[in-house]
Amino acid sequence: MAKSWGDLVDGVKGGDLRSLARMITRVENRASGWKAAMKAIYPAAGRARVFGITGSPGAGKSTLTNKVALGLVEKGFRVGIIAVDPSSPFSGGALLGDRLRMGDIATKEGIFIRSMATRGALGGLCQGARDVSRILDAYGMDIVLIETVGVGQDEIEVVKAADLVMVICVPGQGDGIQALKAGIMEIADVFVVNKADREGADEVVADISMMLELSSEADGKKPPVMKTSALNGDGIECLVDTIIEMSEGKQRPEAQEEERIREEILLLLEREVALYVRKVWAHNGSLQAAVEQVLQGKSDPYTIAEEMISVIRDRSSGETRGKA
Amino acid sequence: MAKSWGDLVDGVKGGDLRSLARMITRVENRASGWKAAMKAIYPAAGRARVFGITGSPGAGKSTLTNKVALGLVEKGFRVGIIAVDPSSPFSGGALLGDRLRMGDIATKEGIFIRSMATRGALGGLCQGARDVSRILDAYGMDIVLIETVGVGQDEIEVVKAADLVMVICVPGQGDGIQALKAGIMEIADVFVVNKADREGADEVVADISMMLELSSEADGKKPPVMKTSALNGDGIECLVDTIIEMSEGKQRPEAQEEERIREEILLLLEREVALYVRKVWAHNGSLQAAVEQVLQGKSDPYTIAEEMISVIRDRSSGETRGKA
Repeated sequence: MAKSWGDLVDGVKGGDLRSLARMITRVENRASGWKAAMKAIYPAAGRARVFGITGSPGAGKSTLTNKVALGLVEKGFRVGIIAVDPSSPFSGGALLGDRLRMGDIATKEGIFIRSMATRGALGGLCQGARDVSRILDAYGMDIVLIETVGVGQDEIEVVKAADLVMVICVPGQGDGIQALKAGIMEIADVFVVNKADREGADEVVADISMMLELSSEADGKKPPVMKTSALNGDGIECLVDTIIEMSEGKQRPEAQEEERIREEILLLLEREVALYVRKVWAHNGSLQAAVEQVLQGKSDPYTIAEEMISVIRDRSSGETRGKA
Repeated sequence: MAKSWGDLVDGVKGGDLRSLARMITRVENRASGWKAAMKAIYPAAGRARVFGITGSPGAGKSTLTNKVALGLVEKGFRVGIIAVDPSSPFSGGALLGDRLRMGDIATKEGIFIRSMATRGALGGLCQGARDVSRILDAYGMDIVLIETVGVGQDEIEVVKAADLVMVICVPGQGDGIQALKAGIMEIADVFVVNKADREGADEVVADISMMLELSSEADGKKPPVMKTSALNGDGIECLVDTIIEMSEGKQRPEAQEEERIREEILLLLEREVALYVRKVWAHNGSLQAAVEQVLQGKSDPYTIAEEMISVIRDRSSGETRGKA
C-alpha cells in the first residue's frame, strides 16, 4: 500500500528506515507533492554536517568512504552516504553500484547508503543531493557523506554545496594536476592521500603541500593533508577523528550561507520553469511543427527558441514589473 | 577594433582564422547578438561530421586525438578539435590546457583547436559544443573531434550530440566496467584500446568484445574494437582510415535527427528561460527579501521557488492556451 506523504514525513522524522528509503525515492522522482513534503522536512533538518568527498576515478573513494562511515559509527555517530554515480543512462548503473556496495556496510546499524544516478536526478544532481541530505538529516543522521567523481561540472557543484570538502588523491595518477583540473583544490577543507601503502605516496603529499603553499592566501590557514590506506586500515582512525573535529567546527559565515540559499532558490526556480516549458511545448503541436521546419531547412533551432521564449518573456515581465 | 557580428560571420564563412577564433569566443560568452550570428552561420553548416571522443581520465585521449587529427590532415582533411576540459572554476584550467596543447599541433595548417571549459559554457556544455561545431563547420572543417572525459552527465550529453562516438580504453584501469559506468558503451560507434604497447591490451579488447556480444541486438551490427599506441604510432593510420570511412557513411536516420532537433530547441529554450528568470529575480528586491526569510527560518527554498514560479506559470499558460 502506498503511504501518504504525511505518513512518510512522520516516519522519517520518527526514524523509520522504510519511510526514509521511500521518501528519498519519491522526492528523487519528483512525485506529485514532493515539494510540500520537503517543506515539511525542512525545519527538522539543519543539524547534520555534510561532507563532499571527491577524487579521480580509481582513487578508492568508495572503499575509503565506507571505512570512514564504519569508523564514525563506532564512535557513536549516525551516518548517511550518498554515492553520486555517473551511471549509464541506459543500463541503470546506479542500481548495480548499490548492489555492489550492499555487502560491505549497508546492513550496518547507523548507516544508510544511497546511490544517486547523475541521470536519475530529475531536479538536477546538485538539488537532488541537497534534498536527500536534508531527508537524511531529518531522519537523524549526524554526518552525511556525499561521494562523487569530481570530474563533471555537475559533480563539482554537488561537492561545493556541502559544508566541508574532502579531496582524495592516490600515488601514480599525477593527482596534483588532476585535482587542480577538476577545480576542487581551491575548495578542499582536507586532502587525503589514499593507497598510501603504494610507492610515491610521500611525493603526492609533498606535491599537494607545495601547491597549497603556492596558492595560499596571506592569512595562511591551510587544509590538512593526510595519508590513509583503505587496504590495511592505516590512517583511517586519524581521518575519522579529523572529520569529527571538523564537523564540530564553526558554522560557515552568514554571507556564504546567504549565497547558498540564493543559489538554491534560483536553481529550484530555473528547474521548475524548464520542466514547465518542456511540458507545455513538448505536448503541443507547435514544437513538432517547428522541428519539421528545421528539418526542411526553413528555420533553425536558434530562431525557433527565440520565438518561443518571447511569449513567456513578454507576459511575465509585464507582470513582475507590476508587482515590483 | 571590435568587428561587427556581420564581419565575423563573413570572415568565418570566408575561412578567416581570426574571425573564427573571435566568433567562437563571443558566442561562448553569449555576447549580445550571438543568436542572430548563429542563425547566419546555420545554413553554412551541416557538412562536417562530428566525432565525440571519450574515455576515462588517463586514457590518453588528448594525445590520441592530436595524432588522429594530424593523420586526417595528411590525407587532405581539415580538422577542428574541441577539447572539453573539466576545468577549475577558479584557476582557469582551460587556458592552461590550451597552452599545454599548443606546442603539439595548434600551429599546424588545417587544424584548429579550442578548449571549452565546463564552467565557461554559459549556454550549457552541450549547446556550447554544438554551437562551436557549427562555426567550425561553416569555416570549412571536414571533421570535428570533440574530446571529453566521459564521466559527468553533461559530458555524456556532449558526446551523444555528436554524429559518431569513439570510446577510448586502456589496459590496467578495469576499463570495461569504467566505460559501462559512464554510460557510453551503448552509444559507441568505435572502441579504441589505446596504450596497446602495455601489457593487458588484448584482454581489454576481449573484455569489450564480450560485453558487446552480451549486449548486442539481434541484428548484430557491432562497433569495431581497434588497438592503438599513441606512443609509437601503432594503429593510428588504421584508425584514421576507419574515421574517414565512418565520416563518409550514411547519415543518421530522420527520426533520430528529428529527436536531436527537438532536444536542441528545448535546451535552448530552457536555458533562455532560466537566464531570464535569474536576471529578473536576482536584480530584484524580492529575491533578497526571500533569502532573508529563509535565513531567519521563516520560510524555505521550496516555498519561495514555488511562489516565484506561479507568476510565470499563471500568465504564460493563459497565453499559450490562447495561441494553441
